[in-house]
Amino acid sequence: MKLLVIHGPNLNLLGNRQTDVYGTTSLAEVDALLRAAGSAAGADIECYQSNHEGALIDAVQAARGRFDGILINAGAYSHTSIALRDAIAVGPPTVEVHLSNIHAREQFRHHSYLSAVCVGVVVGFGPESYRLGLEGLIRHLSAERD
Amino acid sequence: MKLLVIHGPNLNLLGNRQTDVYGTTSLAEVDALLRAAGSAAGADIECYQSNHEGALIDAVQAARGRFDGILINAGAYSHTSIALRDAIAVGPPTVEVHLSNIHAREQFRHHSYLSAVCVGVVVGFGPESYRLGLEGLIRHLSAERD
Amino acid sequence: MKLLVIHGPNLNLLGNRQTDVYGTTSLAEVDALLRAAGSAAGADIECYQSNHEGALIDAVQAARGRFDGILINAGAYSHTSIALRDAIAVGPPTVEVHLSNIHAREQFRHHSYLSAVCVGVVVGFGPESYRLGLEGLIRHLSAERD
Amino acid sequence: MKLLVIHGPNLNLLGNRQTDVYGTTSLAEVDALLRAAGSAAGADIECYQSNHEGALIDAVQAARGRFDGILINAGAYSHTSIALRDAIAVGPPTVEVHLSNIHAREQFRHHSYLSAVCVGVVVGFGPESYRLGLEGLIRHLSAERD
Amino acid sequence: MKLLVIHGPNLNLLGNRQTDVYGTTSLAEVDALLRAAGSAAGADIECYQSNHEGALIDAVQAARGRFDGILINAGAYSHTSIALRDAIAVGPPTVEVHLSNIHAREQFRHHSYLSAVCVGVVVGFGPESYRLGLEGLIRHLSAERD
Amino acid sequence: MKLLVIHGPNLNLLGNRQTDVYGTTSLAEVDALLRAAGSAAGADIECYQSNHEGALIDAVQAARGRFDGILINAGAYSHTSIALRDAIAVGPPTVEVHLSNIHAREQFRHHSYLSAVCVGVVVGFGPESYRLGLEGLIRHLSAERD
Amino acid sequence: MKLLVIHGPNLNLLGNRQTDVYGTTSLAEVDALLRAAGSAAGADIECYQSNHEGALIDAVQAARGRFDGILINAGAYSHTSIALRDAIAVGPPTVEVHLSNIHAREQFRHHSYLSAVCVGVVVGFGPESYRLGLEGLIRHLSAERD
Amino acid sequence: MKLLVIHGPNLNLLGNRQTDVYGTTSLAEVDALLRAAGSAAGADIECYQSNHEGALIDAVQAARGRFDGILINAGAYSHTSIALRDAIAVGPPTVEVHLSNIHAREQFRHHSYLSAVCVGVVVGFGPESYRLGLEGLIRHLSAERD
Amino acid sequence: MKLLVIHGPNLNLLGNRQTDVYGTTSLAEVDALLRAAGSAAGADIECYQSNHEGALIDAVQAARGRFDGILINAGAYSHTSIALRDAIAVGPPTVEVHLSNIHAREQFRHHSYLSAVCVGVVVGFGPESYRLGLEGLIRHLSAERD
Amino acid sequence: MKLLVIHGPNLNLLGNRQTDVYGTTSLAEVDALLRAAGSAAGADIECYQSNHEGALIDAVQAARGRFDGILINAGAYSHTSIALRDAIAVGPPTVEVHLSNIHAREQFRHHSYLSAVCVGVVVGFGPESYRLGLEGLIRHLSAERD
Amino acid sequence: MKLLVIHGPNLNLLGNRQTDVYGTTSLAEVDALLRAAGSAAGADIECYQSNHEGALIDAVQAARGRFDGILINAGAYSHTSIALRDAIAVGPPTVEVHLSNIHAREQFRHHSYLSAVCVGVVVGFGPESYRLGLEGLIRHLSAERD
Amino acid sequence: MKLLVIHGPNLNLLGNRQTDVYGTTSLAEVDALLRAAGSAAGADIECYQSNHEGALIDAVQAARGRFDGILINAGAYSHTSIALRDAIAVGPPTVEVHLSNIHAREQFRHHSYLSAVCVGVVVGFGPESYRLGLEGLIRHLSAERD
Repeated sequence: MKLLVIHGPNLNLLGNRQTDVYGTTSLAEVDALLRAAGSAAGADIECYQSNHEGALIDAVQAARGRFDGILINAGAYSHTSIALRDAIAVGPPTVEVHLSNIHAREQFRHHSYLSAVCVGVVVGFGPESYRLGLEGLIRHLSAERD
Repeated sequence: MKLLVIHGPNLNLLGNRQTDVYGTTSLAEVDALLRAAGSAAGADIECYQSNHEGALIDAVQAARGRFDGILINAGAYSHTSIALRDAIAVGPPTVEVHLSNIHAREQFRHHSYLSAVCVGVVVGFGPESYRLGLEGLIRHLSAERD
Repeated sequence: MKLLVIHGPNLNLLGNRQTDVYGTTSLAEVDALLRAAGSAAGADIECYQSNHEGALIDAVQAARGRFDGILINAGAYSHTSIALRDAIAVGPPTVEVHLSNIHAREQFRHHSYLSAVCVGVVVGFGPESYRLGLEGLIRHLSAERD
Repeated sequence: MKLLVIHGPNLNLLGNRQTDVYGTTSLAEVDALLRAAGSAAGADIECYQSNHEGALIDAVQAARGRFDGILINAGAYSHTSIALRDAIAVGPPTVEVHLSNIHAREQFRHHSYLSAVCVGVVVGFGPESYRLGLEGLIRHLSAERD
Repeated sequence: MKLLVIHGPNLNLLGNRQTDVYGTTSLAEVDALLRAAGSAAGADIECYQSNHEGALIDAVQAARGRFDGILINAGAYSHTSIALRDAIAVGPPTVEVHLSNIHAREQFRHHSYLSAVCVGVVVGFGPESYRLGLEGLIRHLSAERD
Repeated sequence: MKLLVIHGPNLNLLGNRQTDVYGTTSLAEVDALLRAAGSAAGADIECYQSNHEGALIDAVQAARGRFDGILINAGAYSHTSIALRDAIAVGPPTVEVHLSNIHAREQFRHHSYLSAVCVGVVVGFGPESYRLGLEGLIRHLSAERD
Repeated sequence: MKLLVIHGPNLNLLGNRQTDVYGTTSLAEVDALLRAAGSAAGADIECYQSNHEGALIDAVQAARGRFDGILINAGAYSHTSIALRDAIAVGPPTVEVHLSNIHAREQFRHHSYLSAVCVGVVVGFGPESYRLGLEGLIRHLSAERD
Repeated sequence: MKLLVIHGPNLNLLGNRQTDVYGTTSLAEVDALLRAAGSAAGADIECYQSNHEGALIDAVQAARGRFDGILINAGAYSHTSIALRDAIAVGPPTVEVHLSNIHAREQFRHHSYLSAVCVGVVVGFGPESYRLGLEGLIRHLSAERD
Repeated sequence: MKLLVIHGPNLNLLGNRQTDVYGTTSLAEVDALLRAAGSAAGADIECYQSNHEGALIDAVQAARGRFDGILINAGAYSHTSIALRDAIAVGPPTVEVHLSNIHAREQFRHHSYLSAVCVGVVVGFGPESYRLGLEGLIRHLSAERD
Repeated sequence: MKLLVIHGPNLNLLGNRQTDVYGTTSLAEVDALLRAAGSAAGADIECYQSNHEGALIDAVQAARGRFDGILINAGAYSHTSIALRDAIAVGPPTVEVHLSNIHAREQFRHHSYLSAVCVGVVVGFGPESYRLGLEGLIRHLSAERD
Repeated sequence: MKLLVIHGPNLNLLGNRQTDVYGTTSLAEVDALLRAAGSAAGADIECYQSNHEGALIDAVQAARGRFDGILINAGAYSHTSIALRDAIAVGPPTVEVHLSNIHAREQFRHHSYLSAVCVGVVVGFGPESYRLGLEGLIRHLSAERD
Repeated sequence: MKLLVIHGPNLNLLGNRQTDVYGTTSLAEVDALLRAAGSAAGADIECYQSNHEGALIDAVQAARGRFDGILINAGAYSHTSIALRDAIAVGPPTVEVHLSNIHAREQFRHHSYLSAVCVGVVVGFGPESYRLGLEGLIRHLSAERD
């Protein structure tokens, strides 16, 4: 099982910005954590980050046929990108995650264009959101195979 | 570690209503699954279901001091109950879960009054949502203890 | 044919509150009227009233398998209860009735969460609303049987 | 007792358009059914259909003094015509009916300008809506006479 | 100077409906009053009433080249007809009048699609609204000629 | 018959600001015109202008018992002052006028808090609006006396 | 004079939750304070708390004929319960109170369905809100008796 | 292939009103142009114009069985007529056209009730809109036949 | 303890306008009542009324350092004045009162800009609102001193 | 005549995603079709696709002076990109096309920021939309040259 | 060059209220700073403050012909005063400034009625906002003279 | 002091597009002007322009640690980019500028997502906006250092 992890805008700064909101774990550490967890579950994990909406769309498209599923934290693009939603809608099964509890923040972060076309959503557990989302994705793909 | 699982209105029908949306697992099976998962993680799980908003509030209140955390799927009350939100806000740390992807359903199911006062939210994985939420809750409580 | 009549909040006061709006017929008289009309049509009628949203949901759920149809006047819960809607959506065929013309009253009474999941709606005829709704329900069930 | 039945736009196509939504009964059959039901109740029924908003208003106005009540299915004009509402407001007592459950369709069909000035509303029972509405109208007029 | 007076839906009932709102003057009396006032001011007045939106549009169009100005009370169509607005926008200078104070009635009567393309608006003076509107129209046309 | 004419903010600049919108007649000329028209109709006219909302309210209050009616162009306060509305609601019968066609300007000028508590409204005829409003007011007061 | 004090959801936790918002006085202390104040004013006070919307409605209904007035802090149900509003509308004269200043909190707490059918509202004085509300209720009832 | 071209309100004035917006081509010229284009493509074109919403609905209904497709510019009724939409929804395949770019005009012209039930929409090319729409309709019908 | 009572626009008319809404007590009587109540509680009361928003702001500002608290009924300015809110926000502790139940009146009276920056709000008890508000203010100030 | 065809996000997948919505024609086939059609009309066609909003803006800017017109299907960016709108507003004359009928899909696809600054819009004909749009663009440019 | 600086409501308290938001500079100091800066640029500065909307309007009007430009911080009136906007629209060129970043505060402070009729706006730099605004105004006026 | 100037989409066209709105100064001239002004104030200025949202985010991120402050005109992305806002929120102190008066243009340009996380905003002075913003930024940074 091959899975792609996609991180959206500003997540490259993880661990050294707004640590009260996002914690002190760096993105590299998150990726390591996910690779380990994937490995344990027999899944091969590849990670990608970009601040460019178009690059995220490219990545989702390129995953078609090459990956079995996607785990995405599209950051702020979650709230504004219909184009990314459209890419996900025709890509491999995708799980959406958010580090912070977006429902406890500004009004404009409460709605994600991506959620409706994703398998499921995990929100608010910090880096744990990624791990839980990964687990959910793997279970979903395993169930589909049965 | 003692955890309370709360199921809201109509979840007692799980497994034999709208199986296309909610799957065929019964609530008893979900509870067994959660007790097993809890047991494996050294957590004691108690389960409760009610169709009564007031009874759910009573349960959340009664959990204060008796449970370390709550896992709740408040069903339709998620979208209408400020009173339940207020109870959770002063109760033990709580994780919100939903079986179906509420963001892919009617507009009035997109907003939950509970999310903003919960630790995190897991949505759309079917019965897996409960298990992932439980795991997230346990990790959150473990991290807090450290 | 077995039918359940459900009356929501404050309908127990029928006949001795706001008689200019709701008329002077008591709820017992409405029930008697419905039992008679049901009897004439070969339908067995059971009546239930509660001010508790949860109790109404319980009643709708309990009707599954025991009743062929439901006639409901959910009163003010019509305008606020998604949980009751969810129960009806998976219960026996249901007809919604209102004594007063809710469309000629305050703005917040114009929308009912229940209507979309009911067979039909009868509004504004006073106690006659119940009788017409009952008739519509019986016809609907008879037609379904054919 | 003389009653006028008014059918609005596109109802002349009844029975041979969108039969999944509106059924296979033709408008002529509905009219026959109503005349029979009226006759049984000692009421004389006249029927009229037009696709023209103005013609429907003319018909409502012309009913003043000539008919004791009106049964109207104004179709799509229900949602847009304040002019028809004004005519009904000063016409004979009127009952509004709809074949389909307008509350389970597009958002713009949920509100009817006519409802607030009608005696009552019957929605969703197919051709039965007419019969139930007629019955409600007759009862209302009989009660008024007492 | 030739002027066309146009009365919209339900105004043919003037004087014998809702006399508390609209007074007891009949439409014929209004027309007589306007013809007299016009005559005194050297203006030739023609009057027209219809309940049909299309007929009102036809009348406005037909006035092009044949009348110097239009005085219109479009009744309920004021609030819903963009088509009538478009006709007025390319017709002779037009003054809009309303018998009742539409701003003191239901919310949906507060906005008129016609106002923005009319010379001016007179509201709330009963039949006097017509007379004042006529006077305003005549003055406007006289000023334009200078 | 004694009448008070009240001009609101910025109307003192009439005739030498935005002459394309408001024309070249000065406020003094408007007042002279109104005094003459009032005189012809046997009415005594007093005029007042202020840029101060409170002063306008004082003036309306002071008119109680001293004037038979008020003609007001409250300018921009029409769109924002509930306090002025409340004063008019308990003052002598009042007619509202506007020089320009407020319905053809910015959205925030389409609604006047004053209209609902005034006898009538005249809009868009330039200085003629005042004269027509005065005439309407006098007719209204004369009719009331009969 | 017999008065019923009704406390809604989560108020049983008063004094040991969010003490920065609600203070440290317990509900029992509030009740004692009210009984004492009532006693001083010659009024007999009975107190009731429930987290159940239906139970609050039952209590209001049961007060009809048995109590002269009601003092209610319906907590979060104030913002969502039309059913409770309907019960109050046909119950004894009622005064609404809130401990915290609901207008300085989240948007969804600014509106109460109950206010419009209550005699008056007291907001923001902590436990003093109850005492002031009680006083206002007693004065209102005394004035009504005169 | 037989096609019906329908022109809505005020389009009969084409060519001699607002020529800056709509150009100088007359409706007769548009019709001639369409007949020629149709002829070249082996399609028989019939043209109809009316200012009456009801007449447009009649025309759409009458086209059932007699025409293979409809090309409609419903003018201002596009923005207000649900009744016309309902007729089109059960009529032959229909293409919607507009002469002017409705999205660059007033807000209330941006939405058309018809678009959702049409095959396609062509907007903003002046009389060319008709020709392009006709071509699109013919291609659509040809493709359907294959 | 020195307290300032501020009355906003139109309250000078108290007792002789809309007595069905506001009662027959004059403002002078209210002031006397408050002075007496203040005196009994050891508080010195000064009263001020103005119809001018700016004058009310001046008064609130001037109270800084000279008064311990303010009791304000800002009338209609409550619903429109952010400037008054800003003055109160930096003035002495303030209690807001309203004679009538603003929540049972027009929609635009339901929201007060002042409430969020006041200690508390008392609404609907007629002149009693002032007395209760005064009491609440005194208690609040006394508690603060402790 | 040189024309630039611009395809926005996800259109590179045309023909092998959601074929029920977008058909089976690939983007290369669309481009070939357009080049052929352009060639027949004496127009030189260049095609470009990108998933990057910025790249689309770059392309529109670069077209200034090099191309006579643009044909654009900006996909999901149509609904969110004001930046692209601004580029088009100062670029060569542009025609907007959409494959699917965006008005029959989700609410958030009904509005395009681009339409108001384009010559015209063609929607819903599948790949034919491009061809019709191209034709419209060429006609528009030819007309401009005359 | 003569310039008028206008300060709106509550700005007289500058430096001794909410110093965390507005800083510790007093209004006199701001004025001195502006006079010095003006002097350096060859501009004569006059300063004025009032809490009265009407007085601010009077000041803007009086500046016509006497001053070359206005620098205004209208405080809370920025968000509510259409009357002040109207005065500015016909006064000398005006620059709007705000001490605090109004876009980072309550929703109702995000919109200013004045901005659209001002040359430019400077927000959020504390007293520096005034100095920058002054500089911008002088440059604008100098450029205009060229 | 090192400062980064960032220009968003379409600003590379400055000086040769919409010169009535944006003036004739080119972006290179603006940059030269800013470098000169910076130099005079002892600040080193670097300039960057891109049409790509992601590139702008990259630039803001890269400025962390390398620049003391940012001056940004994000053009149309100001109104749509939450991702850019998030980057700025954790970047060096930033000042937002706009050439045109965005509050006097289309509604969708009135709100900027960036403003709330910037130090201040300068709007409407043409190229002067940049210079004033630069000055404000330098002063802000100097003040912070003290």
